[in-house]
Amino acid sequence: MPTSEFRKYGHQLVDWVADYLDHVEQYPVLPAVQPGDVRRSLPAAPPQEPESMDQIIADLDRSIMPGITHWNHPRFHAYFNSTASSPGILAELLSSALNVNGMVWQSCPAVTELEEVTLDWLRQMLGLPKGFWGVIYDTASTSTLHGIAMAREAMEDLNTREQGLGGRNDVPRLRAYISELAHSSVEKAIITLGFGVAAIRKIPVDGQFRMNPAELRTAIAEDRKNGLRPFCVVATVGTTSCTSIDPVPAIADICEREHLWLHADAAYGGSAAIIPEMRHILDGCERADSFVVNPHKWMFVPVDLSAFYTRKPDLLRRAFSLVPEYLRTSKDDAVRNLMDYGVPLGRRFRSLKLWFVLRYFGWNGLAARLRDHLRLAQLFAGWVEAHPAFELLAPVHFGTVCFRAHPSGVDDEPTLNLLNEKLLHAVNDSRETFLSHTKLGGRYTIRIAIGHIQTQESHLQSTWDLLQRELNNVRV
Amino acid sequence: MPTSEFRKYGHQLVDWVADYLDHVEQYPVLPAVQPGDVRRSLPAAPPQEPESMDQIIADLDRSIMPGITHWNHPRFHAYFNSTASSPGILAELLSSALNVNGMVWQSCPAVTELEEVTLDWLRQMLGLPKGFWGVIYDTASTSTLHGIAMAREAMEDLNTREQGLGGRNDVPRLRAYISELAHSSVEKAIITLGFGVAAIRKIPVDGQFRMNPAELRTAIAEDRKNGLRPFCVVATVGTTSCTSIDPVPAIADICEREHLWLHADAAYGGSAAIIPEMRHILDGCERADSFVVNPHKWMFVPVDLSAFYTRKPDLLRRAFSLVPEYLRTSKDDAVRNLMDYGVPLGRRFRSLKLWFVLRYFGWNGLAARLRDHLRLAQLFAGWVEAHPAFELLAPVHFGTVCFRAHPSGVDDEPTLNLLNEKLLHAVNDSRETFLSHTKLGGRYTIRIAIGHIQTQESHLQSTWDLLQRELNNVRV
Repeated sequence: MPTSEFRKYGHQLVDWVADYLDHVEQYPVLPAVQPGDVRRSLPAAPPQEPESMDQIIADLDRSIMPGITHWNHPRFHAYFNSTASSPGILAELLSSALNVNGMVWQSCPAVTELEEVTLDWLRQMLGLPKGFWGVIYDTASTSTLHGIAMAREAMEDLNTREQGLGGRNDVPRLRAYISELAHSSVEKAIITLGFGVAAIRKIPVDGQFRMNPAELRTAIAEDRKNGLRPFCVVATVGTTSCTSIDPVPAIADICEREHLWLHADAAYGGSAAIIPEMRHILDGCERADSFVVNPHKWMFVPVDLSAFYTRKPDLLRRAFSLVPEYLRTSKDDAVRNLMDYGVPLGRRFRSLKLWFVLRYFGWNGLAARLRDHLRLAQLFAGWVEAHPAFELLAPVHFGTVCFRAHPSGVDDEPTLNLLNEKLLHAVNDSRETFLSHTKLGGRYTIRIAIGHIQTQESHLQSTWDLLQRELNNVRV
Repeated sequence: MPTSEFRKYGHQLVDWVADYLDHVEQYPVLPAVQPGDVRRSLPAAPPQEPESMDQIIADLDRSIMPGITHWNHPRFHAYFNSTASSPGILAELLSSALNVNGMVWQSCPAVTELEEVTLDWLRQMLGLPKGFWGVIYDTASTSTLHGIAMAREAMEDLNTREQGLGGRNDVPRLRAYISELAHSSVEKAIITLGFGVAAIRKIPVDGQFRMNPAELRTAIAEDRKNGLRPFCVVATVGTTSCTSIDPVPAIADICEREHLWLHADAAYGGSAAIIPEMRHILDGCERADSFVVNPHKWMFVPVDLSAFYTRKPDLLRRAFSLVPEYLRTSKDDAVRNLMDYGVPLGRRFRSLKLWFVLRYFGWNGLAARLRDHLRLAQLFAGWVEAHPAFELLAPVHFGTVCFRAHPSGVDDEPTLNLLNEKLLHAVNDSRETFLSHTKLGGRYTIRIAIGHIQTQESHLQSTWDLLQRELNNVRV
């Protein structure tokens, strides 16, 4: 593409994005398409000849946009919502144009060093100790996989890197402990690493959905007695289900006494620790061996950017370094080559968007916006509590509220579950907002996640009105 | 950021990128920085208050750009070079603005369906059979990890998903076979999955650096006799070291007879198969169980986009699906939810850039450009062959040429190795071009990878002149 054409379409698409951001609220949050609609709107065979950017952009509007769920919409409240803020979007433009691959220092010094600098800034903002060293992966799933791989590597006597887990008679049955509410990616990581589902022991939670340390202690003792070898505990700060916070200090005590690896999953909740008065949510995490927080969740960085920290970078390197001749460089003794710290060899210039976002908003600016989300969540929770036909189902620690409709006179749980499932579908079918659900103690629970940079009280008010209106229409 | 400001800086940065692409040749390919220079040019503490985009952009130019290795430069010839073409860059701008996460169909139908459509287009272009189903991961390292995880899952009797590999007396010692020249990511995947280095058996290569099928057969028989259980073979089409092509049809014969999983790593070489007269390089890959090709390597798509194909998507799903309540949707029976097909839950809208690139260039346009790279590589190889002081060290199948200086009168290998190492450093120290190296049969080998969309004969001529000039200066 001649650069004159790049300029023309670049300017046009910047305006397209600006118009999108200006008018995102005119889109339904959820698209109206049925499975297969987008696919059927596109040719089944690849284009033989070149097509013009005008055609491609027209098809973007015609075929792709009707199939978009608008994550960047202030009334997107499903899962954990996220924001692609403007400085983050602009940084991604630059990062894709530079197209560098920071697998080794030499292959792009700025990737290695800006990642080091920005993750150290973030570490300071989170109040983690100096010894925590960070590296960027794509998602929390990948970060957690690396944390648990480190737990495996930490069992030095087993030498699993060389000998593997299987076909040996000197590897005991191993056990990792997670709460009932740990994220599915934790189980997936344990399976992927070759431990199997059987290695997972789920510890019950208390009435506030927090891992029960007494149960953890008992489980470990029981397993040891039965010849199993405990090796790892995963604690969560902000569970996906209901944002509960495991008692990390008590869990860290147990891990230290039992010599177990502690991985702290603060993928969602961790961001809140940059607010000084919220720093306490990470109490105990300074004793974790590995830790993950996702700036692409609640820090206005476009996906994907998961920040993984560990106090033991040399162990991470020992688990993953493997340097073929064609990747050796004359600087290897003087630098960190980030390919040595994980599965993926290739490394996009992801830190650029974190750098842009941290600088554009500043620590105080980010904290102010997150603080506002906490305020909005409390506001919404207050509406729920004050309403006779709704109730809260979990404590509100962050920007996410778990609740359900509970009209007077409807008291059996199966009916309530059905009612709330129907209510959620009715609300989402309006396509004006997007909420998701979970189950807490068997109860069908509606979740509203508040974390978009543009979400205002008026957005919540309209969603709240919609919930009440639809509740009147739901029949069970 | 007000959208008026987004427009202003968006236009400014589009022009920044256009100027960069126009003038990229004025940059040295390799930066002059020493380890720590970029880091030291940045504050050690995070910014407390917001900073202006003008400041951020000024610092981009001042601190970051001097630390960039210019992968998007037509004289970048190290590793496998790659190109961020303009349509790909523009698509990434859109993708970061939409900021969708296609973990389930409902969370963004367009992500699931455009990924399906574009990977099927690519499948057709590669001449792979209809049964091959594709999914996008970040890098070939991740794709290969999933291929080998499938090989593990395919051993149904072991039920490793549930029971894991360790702490059992019914799991034999397992063995995967790779060539001596398989990519380091294959070994890393085997280690990560819990098999250990001991599970890797490296099969010797022939004089053209191709896995020797007779040696593979012998190794399998020997291992079986010794009570080991073979489970997987990885064949490579275009090894990273020297782009050699393993004899996939013969390897597929062995895999079928021995009931072994066949993973084909065509991360680099596979792209060439879109050229009709080059399709033969993938002969045999239609019988692979899993297959990887990286459009971000040699198809002008910005990093990262690795295309993973398998004939057995249900097996991939069986290995990786794990659906917590909060990710269930009412459409689960009618759609594919891509989170079920791998480790990462989050999924960026990566197919958008592939769609833009395939359409903007068209199949014929892409094939023409790759054909030109093949021509340039043959041209360069011809120069090497015709020169009395240089020699080729491997067959040239694609866009990469392996060679060394071999001046008359210098015949002992250690001296030649030292000479070529010094020559490479001298050439790279000029920063006018960036070549990398490997070792082939103990010989220090210089590699020139030709694959940037802007690389012309004149660029190669200047690098070739530089090599000859520096050879005259090198003293050993």
